[in-house]
Parts: sequence; C-alpha cells; structure tokens
Amino acid sequence: MTDTSTAPVLVAVDEASGIGVLTLNNPGQRNPLSVTTMREVIAGLIALSADTKVIVIRAEGPVFSAGHNLRDMIGRTLEEERAIFDTCNEMMKTVQAIPQPVIASVQGPALAAGCQLVAACDLAVAADDAEFGTPGVRIGLFCSTPMVAVSRAVGRKRALQMLLTGEAIDARTAADWGLVNFVVEAAALDTETTALAAKIASASPATLRIGKDAFYRQIDLPQDAAYEAMAETMASNAVLDDAQEGISAFLEKRAPEWTGR
Amino acid sequence: MTDTSTAPVLVAVDEASGIGVLTLNNPGQRNPLSVTTMREVIAGLIALSADTKVIVIRAEGPVFSAGHNLRDMIGRTLEEERAIFDTCNEMMKTVQAIPQPVIASVQGPALAAGCQLVAACDLAVAADDAEFGTPGVRIGLFCSTPMVAVSRAVGRKRALQMLLTGEAIDARTAADWGLVNFVVEAAALDTETTALAAKIASASPATLRIGKDAFYRQIDLPQDAAYEAMAETMASNAVLDDAQEGISAFLEKRAPEWTGR
Amino acid sequence: MTDTSTAPVLVAVDEASGIGVLTLNNPGQRNPLSVTTMREVIAGLIALSADTKVIVIRAEGPVFSAGHNLRDMIGRTLEEERAIFDTCNEMMKTVQAIPQPVIASVQGPALAAGCQLVAACDLAVAADDAEFGTPGVRIGLFCSTPMVAVSRAVGRKRALQMLLTGEAIDARTAADWGLVNFVVEAAALDTETTALAAKIASASPATLRIGKDAFYRQIDLPQDAAYEAMAETMASNAVLDDAQEGISAFLEKRAPEWTGR
Repeated sequence: MTDTSTAPVLVAVDEASGIGVLTLNNPGQRNPLSVTTMREVIAGLIALSADTKVIVIRAEGPVFSAGHNLRDMIGRTLEEERAIFDTCNEMMKTVQAIPQPVIASVQGPALAAGCQLVAACDLAVAADDAEFGTPGVRIGLFCSTPMVAVSRAVGRKRALQMLLTGEAIDARTAADWGLVNFVVEAAALDTETTALAAKIASASPATLRIGKDAFYRQIDLPQDAAYEAMAETMASNAVLDDAQEGISAFLEKRAPEWTGR
Repeated sequence: MTDTSTAPVLVAVDEASGIGVLTLNNPGQRNPLSVTTMREVIAGLIALSADTKVIVIRAEGPVFSAGHNLRDMIGRTLEEERAIFDTCNEMMKTVQAIPQPVIASVQGPALAAGCQLVAACDLAVAADDAEFGTPGVRIGLFCSTPMVAVSRAVGRKRALQMLLTGEAIDARTAADWGLVNFVVEAAALDTETTALAAKIASASPATLRIGKDAFYRQIDLPQDAAYEAMAETMASNAVLDDAQEGISAFLEKRAPEWTGR
Repeated sequence: MTDTSTAPVLVAVDEASGIGVLTLNNPGQRNPLSVTTMREVIAGLIALSADTKVIVIRAEGPVFSAGHNLRDMIGRTLEEERAIFDTCNEMMKTVQAIPQPVIASVQGPALAAGCQLVAACDLAVAADDAEFGTPGVRIGLFCSTPMVAVSRAVGRKRALQMLLTGEAIDARTAADWGLVNFVVEAAALDTETTALAAKIASASPATLRIGKDAFYRQIDLPQDAAYEAMAETMASNAVLDDAQEGISAFLEKRAPEWTGR
C-alpha cells in the first residue's frame, strides 16, 4: 500500500491522538469502489488497526463515493461478478471486524456501495450537503448487498423506499432515520469528526475492543441468548485491570490511567 | 373474482403504466376484512401480478379498513377462528410474496388487520387524515397477528404502546415511526400514490422482482448469512440483460430499454 | 421484603385501580442496583404480579438510577462478577416475563443498568429532565448487558453512539429514538404515568396477559414463524369469554364486563 497523493486510498495515523484516517482519494472519478480500491481499503483498515484507537473513513472531493465502478461490471462472467461482490462483502465485514470503532465522515453523495459503507461503519458524521442513496434499481442492478446494511440501519419501509425508488435522502433525513449520527456544517466536517474520534480515543482501548466485538456478537441473537453472552462478556471485562482502574478512579474522583489490559 | 361496483374487492389495470389497483369496496361497512373479502384480496393480488409492474392497494370511502369483520368471530369454534387467522396470514404473506412492489394508499382509519395490511405493504402513502391503530385489547382480543407486522415496522416500545393502549396514531406520527413513507393532503392521495407507483414502474420489472424477493429473503437473516445470500443475488442480477443494458445506458448517458430479462 | 420507608425497594398496590407500584428508594445513593436491591426488585415484581393489572417502576429522588453499585465490583473474582450480571439479567427478564404490562416512570438520570431497566420495561414515561446513558466505556467497563436492551430499542447507530461515547441523551431524544414513549413535565410525571397505567388496567387482564406473552414470543422470530405462532394465539384468544364479551359489547355499543377468563 503506497501513500502518495495519487493512490486511490490513503492512510495516515496521528500518533498523539491514536486516530487513524483512511481517505478515498480518487475524487476525479467520484471515489469509485473498484475491486482494486476495495482491496486497498481492506488492507488499509487492517494496517491502521495495528496501532490506532479509532479509525475515520473519509473521502477527498465533493463526492464521498458513487459506489462500485460500473465499468468493472460490463461483460463479465458470473464468476467475475461474484468476485466483485465477495470483495465488497469482505470490505464491509472488515469495517466491523477490526477492534477499533470506525467513523464515516461523509460529504456529498454516498451512493450504492458508498451508502452501504456508511451504514456499515459503527458511527457516521455527515456534512449538511451529504446525501445517501441506493439507486441501482434505476440501472437494472438492484442494490441487494447494500440493502443488508441499509435495511438494518433504517428499517423496512424506509429501506424499501430507498431501494425501490432509487431516490437519495438528504443528510437531515439520514440522521432522522438513524443512518448517520450527526449532521454538521460542511466546513466543520473534519473538525467535528476528529472531536468525536478523540473523545472515543480517550477510553481504554481494551474496553473499546471488548465492546465493539460484543456489540456485533449480540445484535443478531435472540434476546435471551444475547443476555447470556453479554453477562459473561461483562463479568470478564470487570476483572480486567482497566476496569478495576476505571472504577477506582471514578470512585476516587480522579482521571483513570489505562494500561490497555 | 367479479369486477362490478358492488363487489367488496375491485381490481383494475392501467395498461399504459403497468400499475394495478386493488380497491377495498365496502365503504358502508368500513371495508371489513371478512374471510370472503380476504380471499378476494388474495385472488386479486395474484391476478394483478400476472401483468402489472406495481400494485396499489386503496379503499373506497372515509375508512381504509376497520379490520376483521367482528361478526365473523362471535360463537365460533377454535377451528373456525383458526381458519380466519390463517386466511389473514395468507393475505399478508401474499402481499410480500408477489413479485411486484405493493403500495398502500391510506385515508381515514386503518385499524387492526387494516393497520397490519398497511404495515405488510412494501410502501405506504397516507392522507393527512389517516390514522393507524391496533385496538383489539379494548375488546378483549389482543391484536397478536397485526403485531407481527407492526412491531417489525415501528419497533418495540412504540408497538407495545399501540397494542397495550389500543389508541391510534395519526398520519404524521406513523411517518415519524416508519409505518408509512409519505403523508400527503387527502385530496392529493390518489395523484401522489400514482406518481410514486409510476416512478417505480419505470424500472426494469426483472430487477424489481429480484430486489423485492431478495429484500424479504435477507431481512430476517443474521447479517453474515444475509451478505452471503445477497452477493450471489447481486452477481446473478449483474449478468442479466437488463442490468447490462442499464449500466451501459448510464455510462452512455442515454435512457435504458428494458427487455425484462 | 419489607415495606418501610428506609428499605431500598418499596412496593404498593392500589386495589381500586389494580395498579402496582415498585419504588427504588435509595435516593441518597442515587438508587444503585446492588445485588441486594436487584433481588428485591425481582421479588417485588413477582409479589406485585400476584394481584395487579399493571405495574409501574418509579424512583425516589432526583436520580432514577445510576446503575450498578460500583463498590460491588472492586476486587471481585470472576465468579463473583458473574453472579452480579446473572442477577441483573434475571431482573431484566423478570420485567418482561411477568404477565402485567410494566411502565417505567423516569426522572433525572437513568444510567447503565438503570438505562437498561427503562429499555426493558414494556413502556416508559419520562420527565423532561430525564436523561439516558450507557457511560461504562468511560470507566473501563463497557455496558455490554445494557446494550442488549438498548440496541433493540434504538437501533444500531444510535446504540453505538451511546455506548462508544458514553454520553447521555435527553428525554426528547429518547422519545425521538423510541427508548421512551412519552415526555411530560416533571411535575406531572406521577399523574401522567398513573393515567397511562389506569387506561391499560381497564382492559381485560386475561387479554393483557396473552398479549404481553405473545409480544415477546414473536419479536425475535423470523416473520413466517411469528405469523404462524400468532395465528394460533389469536384464535385461542378469540374463543375466550372475555373476547366474546368484548366483541359483543362493542357490537352492542355497551361497556364490556370482564370476567378474566
């Protein structure tokens, strides 16, 4: 993975804060998620997860991402198409599988797999000019993999509206529907996202790792099974050094010192 | 299935647009969903699905539907009651099983099974005088089958509020909670619903069929299983003629010509 | 279970209305959910369920509950921590397992397991000064059991926001996200909660019991399985005396007389 200004994916780490940033960097083509780019996103996330506390996914230019590279999909065999969507699934799963919280920072359109990427992130901050859509139905290719993440974020009727009409929703609607967490002025997007990332990065990395892993283990379980799994997770968490330190610091009204254990 | 103005269920097709319309047509009795009527709805939906692209379910009169015909339920055996609710389940499943998107167009009260029918439709447009309720608890018959669709549309606390109090919510609240997609002036209900239907009907019918089927296959799966199924669905979709035509037309900045394959 | 003013949990029954009230009564320590207190809540709910129609969970003082007693968790073995969270799970399950609808009545902060308790209740009324948070991440102990109930109430992105930042949301936001049903002026909290409880208590207790049990049986099932189970539930409900009475009373435009059968 190179880190030059012409590479389609850039990664950077702010060592002081522990915040990693992955940038989609092909603004001239509206940050298409070609197979090559998706592989670089996967590699970039894994690389960043080695030494960061929180990761931000952002994009250069006026468009967050227009989705897959449609030119990749013309005249392919079924096997070749499968490889594209398998890579896409792997990218979305990597976002949730790495231990760090991942925040999408979105300006302009986030469409199809670009919208899915936002839905797959743990949190999302949107500029007020952002918009979110699954327009595949208009070009004969229903957004079936995007709908996995989008329908789990916004619910049935709203997901079907986006999928069947292909029309995008604006940033305020996305916040109202739970697809993004915050809407901010476009000029403040980087600042606000960084502030959110820094707040989360001040927590114990061991605790964040336990919590993110636990969240995705429990979310699809029936409630009783989820409770059983989470009681064990929380008991194991409670005996760790960072929990004992955090609880003691709270009771003693002092700042905790995390050791990461 | 007859198509006269005194039949409880009317069906019509606009051949130019490909929009099918099923009308609940017993306004004098508040469009009750008797067993006979539910069988006619099922037959009507299946008939319309033979040659339409999108289907609208609407109702004559000031009430969308007051739900089951309560007179059907007095003094019945358990077997007879089972037959009523099995037929009701079959109607709700048919709405989602047919390949065409189904849009509810709702004015006035939609109660109990009438509310469930709206929740079961893929999309819903409500007049500003519409209201939605599951009042069975007030008459000793908890709305247990309606809650399957309603709780999956509006979430736990809101579904329990409707179910335990029996109080209806207004159209704006229904939109806020995700039970309906749009609220329009009552006088514009038909026009707005038809415009939405026409927009969807301009898409490739093959793509709509794939997408609707895929949506309901994935929505109840754990996320990993959903991604696996949808990658295969989307790859198979991508090699179809309509997808190749749609992608090519988009890249060439021209309108697509669907062949339905 | 004692019922004196210094006990950490008080229970009372209004026999005329059939409303049971369980009060967290340790305001000086912000109503901590110690193991002892949680066992008293469980015992109190079971006791109240013997002769009430609806149960309210409320709290004395300016804080609904700050969550677990952190002093319980210092220097414990893994086995001891497990016992704490197993007891907590049992309390949350008891809220949903008893046949009566349970309404949380919340003023001030409801944090961690206190927030979870609100999420686990069937309904919730919040004073306008209420706030809801899962701050465990800030003290090294991720709110993994609270997130089971909270993520099922507010959805993925919003639950992760609460869990990863540890920041509380206000009462209006909680209503907007579906964590509580109603927000009222703080001075009107008891009155409004009692009015809601009384409205529900006027329904047939047999019907409420069937409905609450059915709700939690169906909510985690795939839709088809849910429909099948609920058709049987509703048919069995329909042949009961209270349903036959309720339907007849409705058709005859008179008030029903429930016999509880």
